[in-house]
Amino acid sequence: MIGEIICVGNEILIGDTLNTNTRYLSKSMTNLGIEVAYQVVVGDHEERLLEAIETARRRSDVIVFTGGLGPTYDDMTKETVAKALDMTMVLDEAALEDMRLFFEQRKRTMAETNRKQAYRPSGGRMLRNENGTAPGIYIKDGETHYILLPGPPKELMPMFEKEVAPILETLSANVITSRIFQLSGIGESDLAEMIGHIMDISDNPRIAPYAKLGSVNIRVTAITGTKEEGKKQIEETTALLMPFLEPYCYSYEDKSLEEVVVQMIKEKNQTIAIAESCTGGLLSSRIINVPGVSKVYRNGFVTYSNGSKETWLKVPHALMVKEGAVSEAVAIAMAEGVAKVSDASIGVGITGIAGPDGGTPEKPVGMVCIGFTINGKSSANTFYFNGNRKKIRDYSVQYALTTLYSLLREI
Amino acid sequence: MIGEIICVGNEILIGDTLNTNTRYLSKSMTNLGIEVAYQVVVGDHEERLLEAIETARRRSDVIVFTGGLGPTYDDMTKETVAKALDMTMVLDEAALEDMRLFFEQRKRTMAETNRKQAYRPSGGRMLRNENGTAPGIYIKDGETHYILLPGPPKELMPMFEKEVAPILETLSANVITSRIFQLSGIGESDLAEMIGHIMDISDNPRIAPYAKLGSVNIRVTAITGTKEEGKKQIEETTALLMPFLEPYCYSYEDKSLEEVVVQMIKEKNQTIAIAESCTGGLLSSRIINVPGVSKVYRNGFVTYSNGSKETWLKVPHALMVKEGAVSEAVAIAMAEGVAKVSDASIGVGITGIAGPDGGTPEKPVGMVCIGFTINGKSSANTFYFNGNRKKIRDYSVQYALTTLYSLLREI
Repeated sequence: MIGEIICVGNEILIGDTLNTNTRYLSKSMTNLGIEVAYQVVVGDHEERLLEAIETARRRSDVIVFTGGLGPTYDDMTKETVAKALDMTMVLDEAALEDMRLFFEQRKRTMAETNRKQAYRPSGGRMLRNENGTAPGIYIKDGETHYILLPGPPKELMPMFEKEVAPILETLSANVITSRIFQLSGIGESDLAEMIGHIMDISDNPRIAPYAKLGSVNIRVTAITGTKEEGKKQIEETTALLMPFLEPYCYSYEDKSLEEVVVQMIKEKNQTIAIAESCTGGLLSSRIINVPGVSKVYRNGFVTYSNGSKETWLKVPHALMVKEGAVSEAVAIAMAEGVAKVSDASIGVGITGIAGPDGGTPEKPVGMVCIGFTINGKSSANTFYFNGNRKKIRDYSVQYALTTLYSLLREI
Repeated sequence: MIGEIICVGNEILIGDTLNTNTRYLSKSMTNLGIEVAYQVVVGDHEERLLEAIETARRRSDVIVFTGGLGPTYDDMTKETVAKALDMTMVLDEAALEDMRLFFEQRKRTMAETNRKQAYRPSGGRMLRNENGTAPGIYIKDGETHYILLPGPPKELMPMFEKEVAPILETLSANVITSRIFQLSGIGESDLAEMIGHIMDISDNPRIAPYAKLGSVNIRVTAITGTKEEGKKQIEETTALLMPFLEPYCYSYEDKSLEEVVVQMIKEKNQTIAIAESCTGGLLSSRIINVPGVSKVYRNGFVTYSNGSKETWLKVPHALMVKEGAVSEAVAIAMAEGVAKVSDASIGVGITGIAGPDGGTPEKPVGMVCIGFTINGKSSANTFYFNGNRKKIRDYSVQYALTTLYSLLREI
């Protein structure tokens, strides 16, 4: 069962929008046992889209489109698919009613242009959109399946899960089972050296490491006839890998690092408070993205100025002058200060130079100090990150979480 | 001059890797006046790649490949291009020498497999890779230009800038000029209705609206013979659009909403402090992503628990009990409290239910109250957002910034 994704949108062709939909669809279709063999992007251009459809129907069994279902005249995906398949466009009364309700519930007036979105190719059926006004469309024409989805990810993703996945599940004879081992504290080449002998002997399950921001993951993928066989193969490979990965693997159940850290804080009856300077609240916001964090998260402070570090975290003025705001001593003082004023057992302090200005030869842009205190024991690390302001801040948060994970394992 | 990008790699087709190279190449080629009409991704699969090359040479003038230049047997891009163009593979002595130096400088031994990377199609020439072992390749065959680039972004990007951009610059007779109008406080269909009459009459410059998270942008693109003519056309279209867009447009200079907000706070001699509950530091972190924000940003508090709202922001206990932690009254009290304790003229308070638990019929998941105080004048809004925990938090921050922008315009 060969799959193809056709993305319609000028904003992707000119590089304005990063194509995250196609990644999401590829991953989801692969997990449903469909081999995605082609991804194609074309503009809002009838002739080129028509050619892309003709090519796709010759070579693929499932063609998933995204984008071009909006209300304006340059949204032309469904009209062009109808043309390629020799269908007419018909008004779908149920979809129109859904749309009226959508606007009524939001106390907004429906624009006349929205009516266009209630039309569908005559041989297709609508897929409900609970998060917007553009319904999706499913067409089976001969042996080929056409699925048309809206462009905005928050409309596309729920629609895929609720309406499309059940259709695709019935199509494929193969089941793809995978497990991702998430590692921290080891680089990709060291890892390849360590488990290369296992990777080499196994083509199915396939073992592939890949680098993520500040960490490395390993994906194990098995293609099998049944779900049970897939699970069995994944477990066998896990047993082979884990003796090597154990010191680095924080999850193989698709949990985020912050989920694992929050879980550990809970299990070890700790509480946490966080003080951030250059990261400006990013670490707190990642930790607070974990549901139920309220039991362990005490407080966060964004102390961007020197004065606020002194006022709120009680960092001694003399220390700031002597060591500088970006120093391991101040990072530790921030961690200890925030833990104390928040009555938390764990404190984290981040201070650094995210740039583009503010660097010196001794303390360059990208230098970040991260301090920790856990049950009265304090420590700090200094990192030198490359990249722009955003990158440096993202790395800082990633390494703060990684170090926190290591420290929590030890208590 | 029609451009096409062909990306070779299984990791993209299974959704493991986000395709950032194609975005980078699209943007860069567009800026050089090449109309990127197609983006294609195929796997490490000779037959499919061959077909993609055949299709591309029929319809495109410049074909840029990425990936598949590595040392292993499944890297086959250049061999397949050679086959399609009826060329043989020849050893490039200069490239081999470069590669030997690369390893020597890094005190590493060159693996025998790397030798493969020093071969090129007979009609092509090598493009130097200063950051890795895979040289790029440039082939002109008839009127078609083939450019083969390595997959890793840190090798691809410098090679594009140094070696490829100078080639492409000489090819295009057209210049593409564009301007993006960033809007807040208006939906896509209302916008289409408002400026539809201008969009309809103009094909070049082309005017295209597109939705972003919680906002809408308009892109105006002009294709002209000279840069000057492009600029002139963009200015003329701006003059046509601005009477309609003025109430909603916060930037047409590619500035982010937070940049504009920070700039306004500076210009109006204000200072800001932020208290966040459900967003957990996200608003602070977006504002702090603006360089030089230290002049106006006083403090941030992440007060996730009820207790910390009372302790740090002096939200009255009785108010919390009477109105509940998620209420406009508490959002205002948070805003006023954080402004007061931080000695800031502007305070923002966000409190809401990001889910997945904690919702009630009266206060459902997705309900978020955002309070503001500016120079002693306070107000609040309640929003009901759809989506998962992360989405609800992202929307909250977007709407907080949008509202802040509107309030700042009024003072």
